[in-house]
Amino acid sequence: MKVVHQIVNYEGLKIVQDPKMFNFSLDSVLLANFVTINKKINNILDIGCGNAPIPLILATKTKAKIVGVEIQKDVAVLAKQSVEINNLTDQITIINDDINVLGKKWQTDQFDVITCNPPFFKVNETSHLNDSEYKTIARHEVMLNLDQIFKLARKLLKNGGVIAIVHRPDRLIDIISAMRSNNIEPKRIRFSYPKKGKDANMVLVEGSKNGKAGLKILPPLYAHLDSGEYTKDLQKYFS
Amino acid sequence: MKVVHQIVNYEGLKIVQDPKMFNFSLDSVLLANFVTINKKINNILDIGCGNAPIPLILATKTKAKIVGVEIQKDVAVLAKQSVEINNLTDQITIINDDINVLGKKWQTDQFDVITCNPPFFKVNETSHLNDSEYKTIARHEVMLNLDQIFKLARKLLKNGGVIAIVHRPDRLIDIISAMRSNNIEPKRIRFSYPKKGKDANMVLVEGSKNGKAGLKILPPLYAHLDSGEYTKDLQKYFS
Repeated sequence: MKVVHQIVNYEGLKIVQDPKMFNFSLDSVLLANFVTINKKINNILDIGCGNAPIPLILATKTKAKIVGVEIQKDVAVLAKQSVEINNLTDQITIINDDINVLGKKWQTDQFDVITCNPPFFKVNETSHLNDSEYKTIARHEVMLNLDQIFKLARKLLKNGGVIAIVHRPDRLIDIISAMRSNNIEPKRIRFSYPKKGKDANMVLVEGSKNGKAGLKILPPLYAHLDSGEYTKDLQKYFS
Repeated sequence: MKVVHQIVNYEGLKIVQDPKMFNFSLDSVLLANFVTINKKINNILDIGCGNAPIPLILATKTKAKIVGVEIQKDVAVLAKQSVEINNLTDQITIINDDINVLGKKWQTDQFDVITCNPPFFKVNETSHLNDSEYKTIARHEVMLNLDQIFKLARKLLKNGGVIAIVHRPDRLIDIISAMRSNNIEPKRIRFSYPKKGKDANMVLVEGSKNGKAGLKILPPLYAHLDSGEYTKDLQKYFS
């Protein structure tokens, strides 16, 4: 399959993508703007980085070293190109491998922060069966599921380090169960609603390794006004 | 201790209360307006009914029989008086007993709906140590905790019946864990925020006995405008 390169601009960053794989999405923008980033953070891991939107956005917020791991070879090529054309090769390293394999080899307690925009659908959900293999792997839990994500976090995060993910609200109970069973305590949750009066269609969850109980539900985020325009909440991520 | 009777009006109902015990609260109004009530419902149980605000409000929405159980004798007296002065003794029965004891004697699978505005604080939380014994029992998990509530629901609900509770968001993870471990599947959650820009300070959760996974996060509820007035969301519960 021929890889088509498109370059998308976001906040001064150039992101290389191929529409046949999948595109730079709002999920990643929300997650990169939700995760807690402060000056003590030295090492960040982005699991399933795709074409690297999260590492690139985080690089505008922190000097920490960022590792992005992407299992799909052609997608990892796009990620590397994005890092290169933004002159961020000193800060961001893209690795083309299976994080479940890599994670077993890596030493414990090495990251301050992990981010993950994971596959949203269970393997038995057939709604996207016609997707390309690229999209199937990115969207369905064939290569990576919630329990694997939080097992990796339990091993690779420093004590007190945080993992933040974005997901669909109908999986919230599974997310919380997988976190708790891996000693990751949910600390911050934010729901995103398509517009006023509608149920939430996205959830951001951050948990802390061996953290104390005590959860905050942040103010809701609305994506669109009744007119269809982005709300001010979202415009601030695109200006 | 002398019991002082005050009569509060709410939506055409008269609710008898004693300010030294505790007062009719927004929590109960929100819960009674959140729980799913439809025409198939025949039997409702309100656990820890206090002075019966939830049974009384539900009686305006359904013809189902409603049982309110209250462990504190003097509080149950107020509840019975409220039921009597509203002429609802045919529909609402108040029982002064410990639901944990009663629940063991009762037969299984008898209620369509359970509601509970439970004690919010763990026993080791000392923030309200100066409360009266009335308030201590109502507010702290001395006589009733989350696991006991959902164990009762598992036994007493019909298959597919629902339990709805109101609680503080920082206990959400404990609530969900206790539900799942008692085969109660969380299906609807709504967060209430004191005003825009603030974290949620109340959560409403409804789960179904042996229900299928699939959670909806309902639109957020704001209690107050910046001016301090109740929002329209809330005004509709008081008009």
